[in-house]
Amino acid sequence: MNLILLDPKDFIDSEHVILKGRRFKHLILVNKVIKNARMICGLLNGKIGTGLITSVSHNCIEMDVCLDYDPPPPLPLTLVLALPRPKMLKRIIESATSLGVKNIYLINSWRVEKSFWQTPLLNQDNLLKYMTLGLEQGRDTVLPKIYQKRFFTGFVKQELPLIAKDSLCMTAHPKASNICPAGLNKKITLVIGPEGGFIDIEVETLEQSGFLSYHIGPRILKVETAVTYLISRLYS
Amino acid sequence: MNLILLDPKDFIDSEHVILKGRRFKHLILVNKVIKNARMICGLLNGKIGTGLITSVSHNCIEMDVCLDYDPPPPLPLTLVLALPRPKMLKRIIESATSLGVKNIYLINSWRVEKSFWQTPLLNQDNLLKYMTLGLEQGRDTVLPKIYQKRFFTGFVKQELPLIAKDSLCMTAHPKASNICPAGLNKKITLVIGPEGGFIDIEVETLEQSGFLSYHIGPRILKVETAVTYLISRLYS
Repeated sequence: MNLILLDPKDFIDSEHVILKGRRFKHLILVNKVIKNARMICGLLNGKIGTGLITSVSHNCIEMDVCLDYDPPPPLPLTLVLALPRPKMLKRIIESATSLGVKNIYLINSWRVEKSFWQTPLLNQDNLLKYMTLGLEQGRDTVLPKIYQKRFFTGFVKQELPLIAKDSLCMTAHPKASNICPAGLNKKITLVIGPEGGFIDIEVETLEQSGFLSYHIGPRILKVETAVTYLISRLYS
Repeated sequence: MNLILLDPKDFIDSEHVILKGRRFKHLILVNKVIKNARMICGLLNGKIGTGLITSVSHNCIEMDVCLDYDPPPPLPLTLVLALPRPKMLKRIIESATSLGVKNIYLINSWRVEKSFWQTPLLNQDNLLKYMTLGLEQGRDTVLPKIYQKRFFTGFVKQELPLIAKDSLCMTAHPKASNICPAGLNKKITLVIGPEGGFIDIEVETLEQSGFLSYHIGPRILKVETAVTYLISRLYS
């Protein structure tokens, strides 16, 4: 835990918080905090600062906190992802959040197994759990927004052009002719397909909505590796 | 499976192979291959080409193979990694292999838990399993070499300077003053610390061996995310 993410409910007054439960256990067992230690803290969707641990009991920690600077800037990237299998989705939500992604669209595609849409992970509480882990990891406070879109064609034809307005539109696709450019550092909407890739007609539909396809060389990466790889490449 | 990795033992003559076991099951259940399908194949540490499936029975597949081109070029990167926890190590071995890393040193450090060195994952057969998955994913045939070094100071002072000869020497360290450069595309030896980072004296020891420290911005990444992120950044 590189940042203690605070909720307004943790505050007993404007500068004092009490932490119990998961965060308490993690701080004691993993961070091994003791009285008078200082930790970086941040208010959910708010400012970041320092917390001085003023007391440690058997089930809670008290801290004096001063939150006085802004969280790191968001990544100007909208990530559109064919819904991955649940185990991988957890890790992608967490890592994309730690990398500063603030808008994630989970979409259907031919090679997305129908059962993936049934996972309890897609409930808001579960998504929140992995986003929180990502914020704690990446020292950020601003929750991403995650949208679920179960109709590929309707989404790509009607909604995606509006979502992607004023951004560079890209599809990552191993069979593309052009290599993905590096160091663009601008507003981008990036579409990444499922394991096995988009089928041809999906790539064509994306092209018709303005999304050109790019490959990243002869190596094919797992979706979770590709997400990090592409973010790093586009914003290097 | 984006490439069927073949062993000399799979060949019944110079152009014919029989596949059983794990690869057979994966090809049937995941790739859903049928007779007359073509798959990309490669000989372990050798050439790549195409396999034509000539028969599918209840427990094996037969293929005609023609291997006539070279695997993708190796990444000119030596990765030196404080031994991560076993679950993460599996994924890092697989993803680093899929990205083309050919030399991985797993080293000790103050914040590496002693128990991590006891994991059966560090046996050669288990490492081979995850390297194989990485090669099958990344369409490569050349196995990485993985070395285990349990004495940080001796390794960094005596062995590492020889290993890193003629390469750019870098340590990824969140507290560094300089940001990691991008798009270097040259021979690099990259050291990545454990969760929680190297302690100060370890960073100093690395500096004395010529390894300057670089950060990647205000966000702190999990080691597995950092490995992919840094590789993409250095070779973009």
